[in-house]
Amino acid sequence: PDWVPHVRDNIMQLEREFKFRNFKLAMEFAIKVGNMAEEEGHHPAILLEWGKVTVTWWSHSIKGLHKNDFICAAKTDKLFD
Amino acid sequence: PDWVPHVRDNIMQLEREFKFRNFKLAMEFAIKVGNMAEEEGHHPAILLEWGKVTVTWWSHSIKGLHKNDFICAAKTDKLFD
Repeated sequence: PDWVPHVRDNIMQLEREFKFRNFKLAMEFAIKVGNMAEEEGHHPAILLEWGKVTVTWWSHSIKGLHKNDFICAAKTDKLFD
Repeated sequence: PDWVPHVRDNIMQLEREFKFRNFKLAMEFAIKVGNMAEEEGHHPAILLEWGKVTVTWWSHSIKGLHKNDFICAAKTDKLFD
């Protein structure tokens, strides 16, 4: 499973699901992504559920995808490795 | 805004949005809710976005709402106060 483009409310977004063995590991990853987002000054939607984190990147200002979203998606992947 | 019942995939869920001034405050609340969930051994969906956290409670085992979901919703509210 990799990043998948989604269109919601006419806005193109990049989304990926990350799976974990339990809630705690999923939450630790969600926090890492949140901290990275805060450093980047670019904020995704982070959906935390039991054993799963869904991260969605898009650029609010242009209501779509910008180079920065792909960069942040790659940074998200690095946090998962 | 209070807890609102939602039906998704035929599953009744309890959902509430919590608003914040920025991403950091939203994330701090999301972490509090996650830690409480882990203590309770009952895990909601927590959607973290800029300035907003959406918490959704339901009981996976019965695919619907149980007394425990209402208790955890009330505990979520207390973390927000």
